[in-house]
Amino acid sequence: MAHLLHLDSSPRDARSRSRQLTREFVEAWKQAHPADTVTYRDIGRDPLPHVSEAWIAAAYTPPDQRTPELWEAIHLSDRLVDELLAADICIIGVPMYNFSVPSTMKAYIDQIVRIGRTFEFTPENPENPYKALVQNKKMFIITSRGISGYGPGEKYEMLNYQDPYLRAVFGFIGITDITFIAVENEESGERSLAESIAKARTQIAQLAAR
Amino acid sequence: MAHLLHLDSSPRDARSRSRQLTREFVEAWKQAHPADTVTYRDIGRDPLPHVSEAWIAAAYTPPDQRTPELWEAIHLSDRLVDELLAADICIIGVPMYNFSVPSTMKAYIDQIVRIGRTFEFTPENPENPYKALVQNKKMFIITSRGISGYGPGEKYEMLNYQDPYLRAVFGFIGITDITFIAVENEESGERSLAESIAKARTQIAQLAAR
Repeated sequence: MAHLLHLDSSPRDARSRSRQLTREFVEAWKQAHPADTVTYRDIGRDPLPHVSEAWIAAAYTPPDQRTPELWEAIHLSDRLVDELLAADICIIGVPMYNFSVPSTMKAYIDQIVRIGRTFEFTPENPENPYKALVQNKKMFIITSRGISGYGPGEKYEMLNYQDPYLRAVFGFIGITDITFIAVENEESGERSLAESIAKARTQIAQLAAR
Repeated sequence: MAHLLHLDSSPRDARSRSRQLTREFVEAWKQAHPADTVTYRDIGRDPLPHVSEAWIAAAYTPPDQRTPELWEAIHLSDRLVDELLAADICIIGVPMYNFSVPSTMKAYIDQIVRIGRTFEFTPENPENPYKALVQNKKMFIITSRGISGYGPGEKYEMLNYQDPYLRAVFGFIGITDITFIAVENEESGERSLAESIAKARTQIAQLAAR
């Protein structure tokens, strides 16, 4: 029995392809694994605050020395980290906005990359100052992009700061088992979009049934 | 006589190195060019909202067909784009947060990359569907990073989604004349930080005096 964390970062509702496909993924997963449980958080339509100066002060202050103001600033981040650590499997929908993740997703990342909770910093070891603290997670990320050509060796690969970035930053905290499912061509006409969605659905059916 | 747009994206105030150095840059610039004017916007401590579904609908609706709700959703973005287009020179402070820009800066980027205002999309020209609309800008970006080694050919180059991303996304809308000034080693001890700040100050003095 596993616990799933399901996140959507698109600000769009019915028109979001990534949102539609994370929902289909979780539904297929639940059919194949009926005992598994799910936590859902909508970081796209109910977005998170940006990290603030008080947040940073709180993150670098030992818990037993934090003032009430610092606790207030870090409390949501603690909850988001708890949620992430409690999950065995994460399913995240992430559209490409301006060649990267939307600011909603970046706000989530800035909230959960936490010193002492998801990574360690040891300046006394300058050769290797960072240590990941998150273990045993499997992650599925459904990306959506307006056009195609952002894959390895393709025309716009050099402009893709979306999935390579997600691999880098989640890898930094210890999440290295990541599978990407891309929906492309939203702006390239109905036919190429339909083909891309069909391909993603086939991949989802196979992954969720495992 | 030129007009400057000065932006700070750090959530920190006195403790921010990028903020301190954009201020020094603008002060040095004004000394060398006393007739120049400056617009200042603090997108770090007075952060911008994330793009919403209504924002997207408004951006893709011709102005004469927008409802009051859509005008409301896009109004701030219009103002930010106007501000950018009115500037000859942009000075931006951008710390590295989790190998990329902070979510405050990404929220700004998502607000100013605007179809029909800063870029055009022509799907009928699939070979080259995007056209930049911003012209004649000079940009100086002061980046700050906790450690060093993110430069070309250095140890952490592959983890740098900060300045290469800024070059890509601003280049996309037509801002290609960008100079980066990096402050490094904030987490590597006072001495290496002081050396890095001294180096950045020399660069700033030269650039602002031109």
